[in-house]
Amino acid sequence: MINILFAARPERWVTYEQPLHDALDAAGITAHLAQDIAPTDVDYIIYAPNSDLQDFTPYTRARAVLNLWAGVEQITGNETLKIPLARMVDPGLTKGMVEWVTGHVMRYHLGMDAHIVNPSHAWEVFTPPLAQERNIVILGLGALGTACAQTLLGLGFRVTGWSRSPKDVQGVNCLHGDDGLNKALELAEIAVTLLPDTSSTTDILNAQTLAMMPRGAFLINPGRGPLIDDGALIGALDSGQIAHATLDVFRTEPLPKNDPYWAHPQVTVTPHIAAETRASTASQAVVENIRRGEAGEPFLNLVDRALGY
Amino acid sequence: MINILFAARPERWVTYEQPLHDALDAAGITAHLAQDIAPTDVDYIIYAPNSDLQDFTPYTRARAVLNLWAGVEQITGNETLKIPLARMVDPGLTKGMVEWVTGHVMRYHLGMDAHIVNPSHAWEVFTPPLAQERNIVILGLGALGTACAQTLLGLGFRVTGWSRSPKDVQGVNCLHGDDGLNKALELAEIAVTLLPDTSSTTDILNAQTLAMMPRGAFLINPGRGPLIDDGALIGALDSGQIAHATLDVFRTEPLPKNDPYWAHPQVTVTPHIAAETRASTASQAVVENIRRGEAGEPFLNLVDRALGY
Repeated sequence: MINILFAARPERWVTYEQPLHDALDAAGITAHLAQDIAPTDVDYIIYAPNSDLQDFTPYTRARAVLNLWAGVEQITGNETLKIPLARMVDPGLTKGMVEWVTGHVMRYHLGMDAHIVNPSHAWEVFTPPLAQERNIVILGLGALGTACAQTLLGLGFRVTGWSRSPKDVQGVNCLHGDDGLNKALELAEIAVTLLPDTSSTTDILNAQTLAMMPRGAFLINPGRGPLIDDGALIGALDSGQIAHATLDVFRTEPLPKNDPYWAHPQVTVTPHIAAETRASTASQAVVENIRRGEAGEPFLNLVDRALGY
Repeated sequence: MINILFAARPERWVTYEQPLHDALDAAGITAHLAQDIAPTDVDYIIYAPNSDLQDFTPYTRARAVLNLWAGVEQITGNETLKIPLARMVDPGLTKGMVEWVTGHVMRYHLGMDAHIVNPSHAWEVFTPPLAQERNIVILGLGALGTACAQTLLGLGFRVTGWSRSPKDVQGVNCLHGDDGLNKALELAEIAVTLLPDTSSTTDILNAQTLAMMPRGAFLINPGRGPLIDDGALIGALDSGQIAHATLDVFRTEPLPKNDPYWAHPQVTVTPHIAAETRASTASQAVVENIRRGEAGEPFLNLVDRALGY
């Protein structure tokens, strides 16, 4: 019997208790999993950096801290933590992003909203183009952008990807650099922004670049809030240059109640859910590290605290 | 120069004129395409059975009648038609069905409607399961059902298919017969009905079978109107047994203004668009037959008028 302390906010326990038990059962590990275990009895600590647990000194027997977050910057400086620290690498996060992007691309592609909200009960036959006639542009060809591009390609879409430096993804029209950005935007009937948040991507969608997109284009942003010049997007929506936008990330989250995006008829707000860690797959990742610890195998995704990641 | 008569309702001309010109250009065929050509000058007739043209006798030079519809039952009995008749086999129809089904499955899977219609501007984080944790059931494993099953499988869903007689589709949990139907319904978090309309499928979703589905299930019907006992579905929606339904086909179409489906808050009506012939791909199919006629090659999809199909 091993003792596993769950040291994260109580609302996370509600989400994780059952998936962790399921993952332990699936791995054949008998364990006592609880939010309250005497420190000297604890073997593993499942952890979130905003936990009340900040002093690891009393956990003399613990073998590893298994983080529920991908980000570890709030814990790497903790000098009381001397045992191995693993960060979360959740295969479900990429899958969830691909599913969210695919769903909203299909929604715009099919023009679903006109049927979902149809107060006049209009029977108006409108046949959308086929996917093979529709250009989707992914801005950003990192792991998430590439995964989305490949899935959309599999559904038959014409997919263009843009990245700062050259990339090559089979079947995807890969463009790069400033010239490539202009060409990509001209094709973007539906644009998906999955760029990192850096000084060179801040406001990459602004009045000038939004104007390069085909009139009546759709925008989907599951990447980072600062990629979009919000005032410019509102202007492009009001003029009809952009037909509709679905935004999952914002400069301030939760999106303030008085933000104009909330009430705009051409905007759908989703609450930063596209790249959520999933309790089921995250629990499997945590339990795999416990299994490794018990089997004397090296832990996965260990953080080098000198480097900070 | 060949003369191609377009003999279908004027509203179809609006849809088809440009795609037909595009397909002719792509095939390198120089032709005069019009709605009004002297009968003795016509080489090919692009046709819809509800056209004013019902007497083919004056079209002495015409080489083939190329139907825009898959159905030919209204024309096979026409004794003035003595030249070859080809029916429409549109590869875009299957693709369009797969895209429509995929889109609405993703919509229910992700719980999109709560974000699309969110008048209280609630920032409520709800993380759906991953596709790999979601059971989709396709009732009907014909060409359309199988194509949908394969695409959903490719997106990671757990896919079960049901058919009257045994079928085998790789990766799909294939069930059949009455016992199989019960098992399939028990798995149907999201059910898609793609069965033909026969005496044994009429009202296949009724009070009894809807009650077998998991509570809060979703229903998508792009197949045939009579597959559903409409009163039973309304009852299951009202009780919460079925959370929401998206219906594309109905016993009476267009759906009458006073039909309870229109106003039901848990129903989305789409106007029989899931399996629409697409002007682009249908035009390519028509032009391929013209190319064959000009090259002396056999026509595709010829109707045997003695058999009637």
